[in-house]
Amino acid sequence: MSEKNTSQVFEGSVCPLPLKHDEQIIMGHGSGGGMTHRLIRDTFLPYLGSPALREGNDYAGVSLGDPASLHGRIAVSTDAHVISPLFYPGGDIGRLSICGTVNDVAMSGAVPLYLTASFIIEEGLPISTLVRVLESMKEAAAEADVQIIAGDTKVVEKGKADGLFITTTGIGWIPEDVNIAGSMAQPGDAVIISGTLGDHGIAVLAARGGLGLQVEVQSDQAPLNGMIQDCLKVAPHIHVLRDPTRGGLATTLNEIVGQSKVGILLEETSIPVRPEVASVCELLGFDPLYVANEGKVIIILPEEEAQSALDALHNHQYGKNATRIGSVTAKPAGRVLLRTSLGTQRILDVLMGEMLPRIC
Amino acid sequence: MSEKNTSQVFEGSVCPLPLKHDEQIIMGHGSGGGMTHRLIRDTFLPYLGSPALREGNDYAGVSLGDPASLHGRIAVSTDAHVISPLFYPGGDIGRLSICGTVNDVAMSGAVPLYLTASFIIEEGLPISTLVRVLESMKEAAAEADVQIIAGDTKVVEKGKADGLFITTTGIGWIPEDVNIAGSMAQPGDAVIISGTLGDHGIAVLAARGGLGLQVEVQSDQAPLNGMIQDCLKVAPHIHVLRDPTRGGLATTLNEIVGQSKVGILLEETSIPVRPEVASVCELLGFDPLYVANEGKVIIILPEEEAQSALDALHNHQYGKNATRIGSVTAKPAGRVLLRTSLGTQRILDVLMGEMLPRIC
Repeated sequence: MSEKNTSQVFEGSVCPLPLKHDEQIIMGHGSGGGMTHRLIRDTFLPYLGSPALREGNDYAGVSLGDPASLHGRIAVSTDAHVISPLFYPGGDIGRLSICGTVNDVAMSGAVPLYLTASFIIEEGLPISTLVRVLESMKEAAAEADVQIIAGDTKVVEKGKADGLFITTTGIGWIPEDVNIAGSMAQPGDAVIISGTLGDHGIAVLAARGGLGLQVEVQSDQAPLNGMIQDCLKVAPHIHVLRDPTRGGLATTLNEIVGQSKVGILLEETSIPVRPEVASVCELLGFDPLYVANEGKVIIILPEEEAQSALDALHNHQYGKNATRIGSVTAKPAGRVLLRTSLGTQRILDVLMGEMLPRIC
Repeated sequence: MSEKNTSQVFEGSVCPLPLKHDEQIIMGHGSGGGMTHRLIRDTFLPYLGSPALREGNDYAGVSLGDPASLHGRIAVSTDAHVISPLFYPGGDIGRLSICGTVNDVAMSGAVPLYLTASFIIEEGLPISTLVRVLESMKEAAAEADVQIIAGDTKVVEKGKADGLFITTTGIGWIPEDVNIAGSMAQPGDAVIISGTLGDHGIAVLAARGGLGLQVEVQSDQAPLNGMIQDCLKVAPHIHVLRDPTRGGLATTLNEIVGQSKVGILLEETSIPVRPEVASVCELLGFDPLYVANEGKVIIILPEEEAQSALDALHNHQYGKNATRIGSVTAKPAGRVLLRTSLGTQRILDVLMGEMLPRIC
């Protein structure tokens, strides 16, 4: 509310002493008063301070560009991030909160432009932890080329949250000629995955420590908007883009076949999984096709553009292991089938129950 | 992420049994798999299901209108709502999460159009509680004439949150000729408040029960966008609009004098406070000028438009008690002064520390 986007206000009133990194969050930091402003001035703004955020209004007023070119739509997506632990190999909640929402906006074919970020902080969180997260958000936002234009900070009592939750909302622009959606898959289309599956889920699981796993797997979390734009240049008729996050590849493909009323046939031997991820999954009885990813995209597109898209993916740092993994079929509509390494076929259903809670 | 905006997907896979209201939220509802989809299908979509939400993509693709008329900017605002308790006289977290963000967007002079809503749910929350909140959100969104176009649901373990947190982000459209901001107050401007102060804070405090207060005060939470548009019709040169939420009137006015580099002189005898709110404040040592409001707006505008604005406010259900409470002065820049009922002047500073935690 009115205290959110604050920068140079309260000059005469706020304690001039800078907030120290060895302090902790206390309830007063969520008051909306002087302590909130000091927290924002000394921690949030140095990292996330876009011009709109620094204006200090209740809202950000931002342009979408030249009205003459505004033939199209905005793409909007939101995600609450509750991942545990906050830091893990390959990333942290800060980078995740930027990449997760940038990617969802990018799945429309849009160019992501603006993000908002809301923080729910548990009393007692060290300021140094918050600063590490904000540094990571700044870096990820720069890489994704998005501005954080509005924010909010709330503090709850110790025991009423789990360190830090971050909700981000993204806004992008979909040009008029782009029409990408889960309902657009056509029989005969190729199905591509941009890289190995399960890295994020297994990296976070290993970081939890309880299982005594010693695995050298890093989360794959990354902003994919640049790579997707590269693909669209050479494969302009992409039908579906979707990132296989919670629920993994299998659940996400089930969403798509439900929306498009088609089937998908996957070739198990083509699906890329790191050996170390495969080992952990075997050990724990997980199927990597259901494990969460945070830097992968499923691309469904006409057969004739598949090779161009693969070439573009292979030229990008986040698409080196991109592979064609299957095809869209007319029947059985609404079903994902897997042709196993033995040559048999089985139905890949959606994830039921919960395999890895708080993975994003 | 990919499971968010889901409606008709998974038809063949999801349990066809409807979710019952006597069930509770369990971790599987946050999996992104079949249980998440069932929750969304049976609780969220019946209440919040806009066309964009029902499309079931990772993003909402929505139009801003005829490109020929798109001379202007978007207004964006975000708020995390962590209020405790979830229900209180005059409202609940659902209505609050809609009104809070609609109002922040409206403070730009924009017409609010779209909202996103992210839910962080503690394991064990009764489905019936969630449904009550969603009913309330639906009603408030209809009153404010906004569509909920994207959402997300996360579940955390019992003890890792406090029932339910809701983060909403709002998007509106600011016409080209509207230029309202905290930095626009001018010496000589009139300062208006749209009604009585402190109702929300005292209603929530009383609902907590611990103080044994028996007070007949209702929260004032309301969507103010309609009333503000009425005002703009008769007072088109409004300089500043801001809702005095956390930190109350005093803190909010301090923000404005900081941004505009002006002073404000308030007349204590003009400031409307309900007798029952004043009594509780006196009992507890609170100053109603620092207590949160959720259905009030501060309007700062040229003297010559003040009466027209007051007339428009008095004609609206949420502005019956609107009053002129002071004036903008050139000096002392950055300070809010209060002329007391005794005729003396004192400085009204920002709220320091925390008076009423988790008030929004």
